[in-house]
Amino acid sequence: MTAYVRNAWYVAAWSHELEAGKPFPASILDEPIVIYRGESGRMVALEDRCVHRLAPLSLGRCEGDRLRCMYHGLLYDPDGAVAAIPGQDLIPKNARVKAYPVADRHDWVWVWMGDPAQADLALIPPAVGLSDPDYILGHGHLDYAAEAQLINDNLLDFSHLTYVHANSFGAGPEFAENLPRLEPLERGVRFSRWMVDTHGQSSRKSSVPIDSYMTYDFLIPGVLLMWSGNYPQGTAKKLDFAAPALDDAQAGVTFTSQAVTPLGPKQSRYFFSWGPRVGHGDEKLRDQLMTMAGVAFGEDKTMIEAQQKVIDRSPGARIMPTAHDKGVTIFTRLVERLAKAESSAASLPEKVA
Amino acid sequence: MTAYVRNAWYVAAWSHELEAGKPFPASILDEPIVIYRGESGRMVALEDRCVHRLAPLSLGRCEGDRLRCMYHGLLYDPDGAVAAIPGQDLIPKNARVKAYPVADRHDWVWVWMGDPAQADLALIPPAVGLSDPDYILGHGHLDYAAEAQLINDNLLDFSHLTYVHANSFGAGPEFAENLPRLEPLERGVRFSRWMVDTHGQSSRKSSVPIDSYMTYDFLIPGVLLMWSGNYPQGTAKKLDFAAPALDDAQAGVTFTSQAVTPLGPKQSRYFFSWGPRVGHGDEKLRDQLMTMAGVAFGEDKTMIEAQQKVIDRSPGARIMPTAHDKGVTIFTRLVERLAKAESSAASLPEKVA
Amino acid sequence: MTAYVRNAWYVAAWSHELEAGKPFPASILDEPIVIYRGESGRMVALEDRCVHRLAPLSLGRCEGDRLRCMYHGLLYDPDGAVAAIPGQDLIPKNARVKAYPVADRHDWVWVWMGDPAQADLALIPPAVGLSDPDYILGHGHLDYAAEAQLINDNLLDFSHLTYVHANSFGAGPEFAENLPRLEPLERGVRFSRWMVDTHGQSSRKSSVPIDSYMTYDFLIPGVLLMWSGNYPQGTAKKLDFAAPALDDAQAGVTFTSQAVTPLGPKQSRYFFSWGPRVGHGDEKLRDQLMTMAGVAFGEDKTMIEAQQKVIDRSPGARIMPTAHDKGVTIFTRLVERLAKAESSAASLPEKVA
Repeated sequence: MTAYVRNAWYVAAWSHELEAGKPFPASILDEPIVIYRGESGRMVALEDRCVHRLAPLSLGRCEGDRLRCMYHGLLYDPDGAVAAIPGQDLIPKNARVKAYPVADRHDWVWVWMGDPAQADLALIPPAVGLSDPDYILGHGHLDYAAEAQLINDNLLDFSHLTYVHANSFGAGPEFAENLPRLEPLERGVRFSRWMVDTHGQSSRKSSVPIDSYMTYDFLIPGVLLMWSGNYPQGTAKKLDFAAPALDDAQAGVTFTSQAVTPLGPKQSRYFFSWGPRVGHGDEKLRDQLMTMAGVAFGEDKTMIEAQQKVIDRSPGARIMPTAHDKGVTIFTRLVERLAKAESSAASLPEKVA
Repeated sequence: MTAYVRNAWYVAAWSHELEAGKPFPASILDEPIVIYRGESGRMVALEDRCVHRLAPLSLGRCEGDRLRCMYHGLLYDPDGAVAAIPGQDLIPKNARVKAYPVADRHDWVWVWMGDPAQADLALIPPAVGLSDPDYILGHGHLDYAAEAQLINDNLLDFSHLTYVHANSFGAGPEFAENLPRLEPLERGVRFSRWMVDTHGQSSRKSSVPIDSYMTYDFLIPGVLLMWSGNYPQGTAKKLDFAAPALDDAQAGVTFTSQAVTPLGPKQSRYFFSWGPRVGHGDEKLRDQLMTMAGVAFGEDKTMIEAQQKVIDRSPGARIMPTAHDKGVTIFTRLVERLAKAESSAASLPEKVA
Repeated sequence: MTAYVRNAWYVAAWSHELEAGKPFPASILDEPIVIYRGESGRMVALEDRCVHRLAPLSLGRCEGDRLRCMYHGLLYDPDGAVAAIPGQDLIPKNARVKAYPVADRHDWVWVWMGDPAQADLALIPPAVGLSDPDYILGHGHLDYAAEAQLINDNLLDFSHLTYVHANSFGAGPEFAENLPRLEPLERGVRFSRWMVDTHGQSSRKSSVPIDSYMTYDFLIPGVLLMWSGNYPQGTAKKLDFAAPALDDAQAGVTFTSQAVTPLGPKQSRYFFSWGPRVGHGDEKLRDQLMTMAGVAFGEDKTMIEAQQKVIDRSPGARIMPTAHDKGVTIFTRLVERLAKAESSAASLPEKVA
């Protein structure tokens, strides 16, 4: 499996997928995890593997804020410690499963896969949640039989819009012929692109020529946050092609949040939302955008799963980066650098308390 | 694959599954085996792999008491020796497949997987067959995508009844809170348990309080033989909680025979029968019991196959036995001891004739 | 995977499977290959793996005689060289995929898997194509979950007709009891067989006794070309059992071309045609033959896939050749000799130009 950054928040589910009192099985970085909301509303994420005989706790039963394994009845506290063993008074000291930091933000359930002591809520990417009053969003998710990294690579190089999405998003050849602006971020890359004197893309057509702007951040571990909008003709030049203010857009502002989660080797889940800003469209436009996205994300899945299969039968084959791979390269090196730092830190002697 | 005892009789099929003159493919301990009843009624079990080009003999044709490979026509004697090769007069001396001791007892077909010289019919566990006149039995079998040992473990610790079968067999929490009596046997473990002043379990309710008794032997290689019955209130105390006589039961006597066969790594077949003793119920009760068992054995399968999947992704994970694991431990050590003795014997120099 | 000869023409498809301008994905010797007919009619076979990020070119788009990868738009020349990279002017010198010699003959698409410099059209086996005016042929293909070598073995020993095809082709026991004549060829083996005073096989019955002749060549890499026909009683003896002239047959002449292609390890495609010679039958007979072949080839597939499964669980098991295996042995040794010569040649130092 590809190396991923562990000290990061991974999307495990849509918040509404977690029903009260019902354990939810998740898999992140090939670790089985059970997530539940206890009676008090507290959200808990535990290793999904009973210490007794390795049965999955996700087949268990919520009791208050605790979770009971329904094989032989071991009861777990929210911190992962075994609280009771039927037929036995003594509970071994090391009888506990791993507990993961977990947070419910922007209508996603986020799980911190690294050192719990370093779990920092400020590192949760600023996605736009489904309940955000400024946007009218549709949403969905898609499972891939492909390594998450391949989906990240896809999202880090939008030149594929011209080819993979020739019949859906409808970006023309000029999209692939021109390179976007790139700006490295502390935990990602920022892309931006002006298209001047255009009538827009299929998602936001304009009857008069306009300047169209789109920008997205792609952030650790694999979260894409993109907005785009239409500006009066000449805006790009006036700004010397710098970033405009979102509020100055005259029309066509949409936002999409996307998250790629590595479930395991060659297994990934892709979460996404998309829709217009209030005042820039309505439920009908949202539904049109989601229909278009449904087609387009299916095109990506077809290509990437086929790519995975070719990779699987090509041991030793190397890739040949092109000019459009600059973003991929920046992000890949960032991941490698952070992952390497983590494994060095993990091998350090314990700090003196 | 887990180590199993080879010098043991494994259930390969229900007797009625073997149609006269029709080769039956079986798999035990990952060895392909073909079983058939010859014209004379003789039952034969051979290695299911032609010496010529390794085609399965189970696709072959019975000819008298012999079996012909239907790829290129080699003919096999019941002892595994090649009796004829089309187009060729000379038959090489070593042209033979392995023949397994096989027996038809208690309506099960048993195959001895170890040294044929040690095959002892007395070691066939005393199951109650479908045709036993004292019982009215239903039967079935279920395939598991799980290691047989996990099913054995399950049957060696009935505290799971309280949790896995909370909605079917309906054993209450007291079942898991109390430990059964255990007695090591030469080739297994005996469990027994009095429940006093009870109204019975869902399989044998009583309108007045009674003492309920259940006992089972779990025998090499993985055979469970259990009976239970209701006794007048006070019987347990009167007997100082020792075993009662089966014939003294006033009601509710049922018997179940169960056998777990390792087909191969993480593949198992679970055979079972259950029903009332004559005078303790009728066909209707038998059908009710089988319906209940159908639900309950499905609950086991769901849990154990899920457990297998967690184990598969948890290399190096260890189990943490509880008080209820005493029977599991006794049986596991017995298996390890017998399996080890077998492999030592197998590596000894040949005996002087 | 079994060793196969690389310097050979493998059947990749029926010619009519290739639609103009539509890339066709093939797999031979576990190499992914894309085949297409360009606008000019030129047939092209390339490695099905873009140099950029290993996406399959078979999901690409034909543009004239070129092929464009539809992931990020790299454009390929028919010789495998990258002709254009969107967003980038410089094309690296080594940016190319492998191009395979390819030919359209006898209504099959043939791909040369070895050294392109040695590709010799004269080595294409002289199959009878679907469009041959002398024959009325039906055709089909069948995929096997089995190693191609096992299908070759099957076709190199027709004694299986007596057993596998007891209920379809209807060859009697005498077929397996007698050996055919064999003649080694430079790139294969020739089988021939007279059956005298017979009423023919189910594919060519005769009301009066006749002498029936059949002969086939089995050629590298795995191509069977067979004809058979009925001759007046006494012909075999008159010819001292030598080969008769095809044109002297009085009735019942049919021809079948068959090709076995190793797609990958334990994955094969079996192509076949069969039908009467003009004057020896009509479309109705062709359809009868194809129906019979449909049943018989299904019998082979059942047996061979079952054989493969037994082999898979029998590491170290050896075969025991019989008298009928002479053809198998001759062909297997030829393959081994040619394959060994190829790998020696491949390790020689480059020739001085």
